[in-house]
Amino acid sequence: MGRYDLALIGFGGVNRALAELISQRGDRLAEELGFALRVVAITDLRAGSLIETDGIDLAPLLAVEPGELSFAGLPGGDADPRNEWVIREVPADIVVEATFTNPTDGEPACSHVRWALTAGKHVCTTNKGPVALAGRELGQLAAEHGVSFEFEGAVLSGTPILRTARRVFGGLEITGVQGIMNGTSNYILGRLEEGIDLPTAIAAAQELGYAEADPTADVEGHDVQLKLMILANHVLGADLCREDVFREGISHITPQDVRDAVSKGLRWKLVGSATRRADGTVEARVAPVALPGHHPLAGVSGPVNAVAFHTDLLGTVTVSGPGAGRIETAYALLSDIIAIHQRHHADDDTAPLPRVLQARVLQETHRG
Amino acid sequence: MGRYDLALIGFGGVNRALAELISQRGDRLAEELGFALRVVAITDLRAGSLIETDGIDLAPLLAVEPGELSFAGLPGGDADPRNEWVIREVPADIVVEATFTNPTDGEPACSHVRWALTAGKHVCTTNKGPVALAGRELGQLAAEHGVSFEFEGAVLSGTPILRTARRVFGGLEITGVQGIMNGTSNYILGRLEEGIDLPTAIAAAQELGYAEADPTADVEGHDVQLKLMILANHVLGADLCREDVFREGISHITPQDVRDAVSKGLRWKLVGSATRRADGTVEARVAPVALPGHHPLAGVSGPVNAVAFHTDLLGTVTVSGPGAGRIETAYALLSDIIAIHQRHHADDDTAPLPRVLQARVLQETHRG
Repeated sequence: MGRYDLALIGFGGVNRALAELISQRGDRLAEELGFALRVVAITDLRAGSLIETDGIDLAPLLAVEPGELSFAGLPGGDADPRNEWVIREVPADIVVEATFTNPTDGEPACSHVRWALTAGKHVCTTNKGPVALAGRELGQLAAEHGVSFEFEGAVLSGTPILRTARRVFGGLEITGVQGIMNGTSNYILGRLEEGIDLPTAIAAAQELGYAEADPTADVEGHDVQLKLMILANHVLGADLCREDVFREGISHITPQDVRDAVSKGLRWKLVGSATRRADGTVEARVAPVALPGHHPLAGVSGPVNAVAFHTDLLGTVTVSGPGAGRIETAYALLSDIIAIHQRHHADDDTAPLPRVLQARVLQETHRG
Repeated sequence: MGRYDLALIGFGGVNRALAELISQRGDRLAEELGFALRVVAITDLRAGSLIETDGIDLAPLLAVEPGELSFAGLPGGDADPRNEWVIREVPADIVVEATFTNPTDGEPACSHVRWALTAGKHVCTTNKGPVALAGRELGQLAAEHGVSFEFEGAVLSGTPILRTARRVFGGLEITGVQGIMNGTSNYILGRLEEGIDLPTAIAAAQELGYAEADPTADVEGHDVQLKLMILANHVLGADLCREDVFREGISHITPQDVRDAVSKGLRWKLVGSATRRADGTVEARVAPVALPGHHPLAGVSGPVNAVAFHTDLLGTVTVSGPGAGRIETAYALLSDIIAIHQRHHADDDTAPLPRVLQARVLQETHRG
């Protein structure tokens, strides 16, 4: 059975959840997927770096509270993250980038990705920065070095939006996309419909852990803007910069606006939309829209996210699911690793299937 | 460039729409998909059979009104459909089965599929009968003969439900599924919410072409029962017969029931659901359910269909889209053909991508 050695860059919620998945159900996953996963390096701004080329024992690390984790005293440990050295030099097959999103220039994550790809290592990431701001360049760099650059989790956490567009829409022309891609603002709009005012709704979202202390990125549409760039560039083949994407948040929507909409059967949603124009270019905008009840995004409530794909032969196909969450986002990384395996190391027929399907195929093969 | 020769069994709405796609945009599709499609045989209960191993010229056939089409006078034509002979003997790569659904024993479609698979031909079908009633046997027969048996269109027409479960959920455990899988009954329930009584709502559905002259299969849940069997058997690895699936239609729901539900924020939907029990077996039932507003299926209105997948790591992921339509269902057949190509004749890297993506990858490769 094959094995992938991983270097985890950033050990916050998401990569920690991936480590939990590997530690707690690695054997079961290996049986299902046909490959094992081993973590050989972890770096983190606060905890430092930890390298063990024979595989890090994850359970003891996961037993320590996140804020108290320090690699400095451990064998192979260092107080310094040493990101460039770890990414370039430690023998890993896949670099898993999950540091913070920098919406201005994507750094230092962009450099992390570049170092890894240039060193001939596959990269998967949940970090919107590098994908939205340098996705095309990094994709070309990956192609030049014969490796993969995967980023399903950068849009709707584990809900498979990008991979759905690539894998099950063959023969269709996607003419446009519309998405509810920020659970915090969607939750807040739902509370406004209940008659609560904006500051109270934001406070409630913060209490539930949906909103950050500074809710600007969620409420003013900056987060959706980056996700829409990724979606439009990947699914519609656009090449959008931030300046190309009109952005308006939900902060100016009044309780009266919401009441008026509800009385007309409409629901306000913060919608990111991208449409192919007649000349082939793509128009993209983030703005609150009062959607009619029958619109496929109108019923998407609370923290749920969704993307509607408008197509030539099928009309609209909509995929909804979680848009955030530690485990959900870690699953996106796992799905990226599966995609890397399928592309580089597996025949089409051995592509991993959900467990029951695999059992059934085996059964059929044996019977056959 | 490769080419697939098709034998179309049944020339009603769906296979006719597939012939239109091939006739009208075959060149564009070939460029995108990397293979050409050619129809070498058509059989139909009323029109007879038509065989032209160098490829049938489709445009003249499509210019004739469906009811007036007769192959008897044409070169290679015959008044007799001669299904068994055509399926077994005409040199086709793929047999496309789109005759009527027989919900009792699946015939004659089951025999059509068996003849084709035994002759070493791939089969794709939109016919619920063979898939729901003999899916496992036919899947094994296909495996024995080294060919594919594909049936995406048997559940939600072109909306990619089965392929989503197989291709983008690797590493997940699907614990259950719930679906709105009949647009007619969903439309009727919507009209009941508007205060219209059942007979009037059924008449409206018939006028719009949603409901048949005899609406029993749609209204009493027989159609959903077959689709749920396909979904549960395929996605949860169950082995359900019709007797295993409890079925209750919507005909006993009163306007008062609907008003009561609406007043509590609930919406009646005809839901097909399958859940894995603790012992590994699968419980499946079709019944009207009053769903709370935040349920992912509650907002699915009119003729739209949807399936919610409940999973271990991602919670619920829902896919919605058309559940019927000539072109939409013909697209399901095209997506089946693409799947056959990917499995048997393509490297992973040459898997067809939506057009813009392909253009972009080519561009990236050239730049690289």
